[in-house]
This record gives sequence, C-alpha cells and structure tokens, in this order.
Amino acid sequence: MERIEGLPKSYLSYPMVAAVVGVKEASKINFIPVVWHVQLSFDPPLYGVAISPKRFSHDMILKAGEFSVNFLPFEHAELIAKLGSTSGRDVDKVKEFDIKLRDPVKLDVPIIDGVYAAFECELIEHSAFGGDHTFFVGEVVATHFDPNVFDEKLTLEPQKVLPTLYLGKYKFLTVDPKSLRIIKG
Amino acid sequence: MERIEGLPKSYLSYPMVAAVVGVKEASKINFIPVVWHVQLSFDPPLYGVAISPKRFSHDMILKAGEFSVNFLPFEHAELIAKLGSTSGRDVDKVKEFDIKLRDPVKLDVPIIDGVYAAFECELIEHSAFGGDHTFFVGEVVATHFDPNVFDEKLTLEPQKVLPTLYLGKYKFLTVDPKSLRIIKG
Repeated sequence: MERIEGLPKSYLSYPMVAAVVGVKEASKINFIPVVWHVQLSFDPPLYGVAISPKRFSHDMILKAGEFSVNFLPFEHAELIAKLGSTSGRDVDKVKEFDIKLRDPVKLDVPIIDGVYAAFECELIEHSAFGGDHTFFVGEVVATHFDPNVFDEKLTLEPQKVLPTLYLGKYKFLTVDPKSLRIIKG
Repeated sequence: MERIEGLPKSYLSYPMVAAVVGVKEASKINFIPVVWHVQLSFDPPLYGVAISPKRFSHDMILKAGEFSVNFLPFEHAELIAKLGSTSGRDVDKVKEFDIKLRDPVKLDVPIIDGVYAAFECELIEHSAFGGDHTFFVGEVVATHFDPNVFDEKLTLEPQKVLPTLYLGKYKFLTVDPKSLRIIKG
C-alpha cells in the first residue's frame, strides 16, 4: 500500500455512473457528461452535480437556474464520450450527434430520448467550497423513468438495463448482472 | 416512460460505489457505509459525503472535524452491509466485526485494513441545503492506495480489483471487467 500526503489527480474513487447534464439557456441547448454527481436528500429530493467553470455548460446553468440529469444505458457510451470531447462553444451537440429530445414535465430543460431515468432540477444553491469545480445543488421537481427496468422499490434491475460506468481516462464499463447479491447485513 | 412530478424515495441514479466513512471521536471509532459521496475538486482535492443526522456517525464527524473514506473490494460486501445494519450507539463495530485498522498518515481517523484506496479528510464545510442529509465537505490531506490495482494514471483496473457497487434495498453487485471499453469520443 502506498501512503501519501494529499491526493494527486487520480480516479481512485471511481467507477462512477457517467450521467449527462443538460441545460437550455437563451434557446441554446447543451449537454455535458458528469461523473461527479450525487443525491443529497430524499425529502425534499435534492441532487448535486460538480462542473468545472471552464466548461461551457457552467455559466449556462448559472443563467438558466435549472438543469437536467440524464441516465443513459451502456449502449450509448459512445455518445456520452462524444459529449465530453466536444464543447458547446464550437458545436451544436444536439444537431452534431442527432440527439432526439423528450418533452420535459415541469422545467425548460433538455431530456435525452433513450434515457432510462432523468431528473429535472431547479438550481437552489451553488458553491465551489474553495475548489476547482462548482457544485450545483438542484431540487428534483420532475422525474422520468422507464418502469420496465426498475423493480417496485425503484431499484435498477441490471438484467434489464446496463448502466454506464466510468473509470477515468476514457475507460467505460458496466456492471455484471450475475454478480448481484442481496445482503441484509 | 413514466413522467412524474418530484421524485419519490427511489434509487434511480444508482449503482453507486458503497464506500465506508470512518470517524474517531473521544477515542470511540465508528464506521458507516455511504453511497452518497462524490469528488468535488482535483486541486485542492475535495471530497463530499452525505449522511443523515439520524446516524450516530453524523455528530461524531461534526465533533471530530475529520473523517476517512474507505473503498473495499466486493469480497467485503457483507462487512459493508453489516456496518449499515448496526449502529455505533449499540455496538462497537470494530470489535463486533473484528475490523483491523491501518495507521493513518496525517489525521486521527480510522482506516480499514483491506481497502484498495482510502482518503483522510479534514472537514472544511457542511450543509444540508434544506434537505434530510448533511453534506460534509472534506479536504483530502492524505491518501492510501494499492498501486497493484491502479494503472499509471491511477484509474482502477477491474481485472485486478472488483469495486463494491450498491443498487439500493440490500442489492450489491460489481462491475464486469470484460465490458471495459476505451472510448475517446
């Protein structure tokens, strides 16, 4: 085991689900893959995403005051990678990657057709905590999900959909449904 | 696709890595599994964990001002489940589950022997954002990792270690190393 002070740029806590954050501002739509995302509360439902101020979506979210979080199956890993390697500054990603959109329920946020789940989030707070990313905290005011791939408790059924996981440095993978174990502790 | 307002209690964004947060306060040690955890910054390295105020570790972290984040391989999923189904109010988890500890580098936080990675975090901020969990933001001041299971860029090699993923409602699983794809976008 290595023991070091601080933490070099690394991916030790990965894999993380590669979600896609969507935003619409001044009638322009953009999408960015995000692996630093996390639920923060069940009631009220809060969801946080961390995005670098260098990214085009960053200021769009600040201005729009709302964003979506999209969860795409592993078969769309290539689209997710493309959304990360291009910038909305140079490219209209919706046109470039022929992204079909779903109608939102409550907010004017873009939802990708083909998601197995998606959240519509109203921005309620943001902070960088002195770091190099901004953490956007949103209240989930509407949800889209495919009832065929979640069980009655709304946990994902890996036999029915494979989530997209990211290990860092372009390495994508998914879960092994055969490894599933129920452990009540 | 279902389209609903709000978000019922659910696990739509899972799987998440089931990490274990450790804390030592007034010479008492406790561990709690946490799936709501996220990196927040590379430089300075910041890491956030969300914990319900109902949990015994919650006030311990506030008092100690520091915590650890431990990443255990899938073969330890049962231990992780047990750490979640018991409370430090009733049980000395270290004794009960015969947990061996590693020496920390910088802080007085407990690190579990058998981790493939662990962070020592100094608490720098906390907030509930109006929700039902407290989000603790820590600066990572020291790191432990097994160099045999990470590549030179410090991304995890799933052929060498299987991370522990959680789907909600006692459902644990891990990744499929054979699904690994390098996608440059």
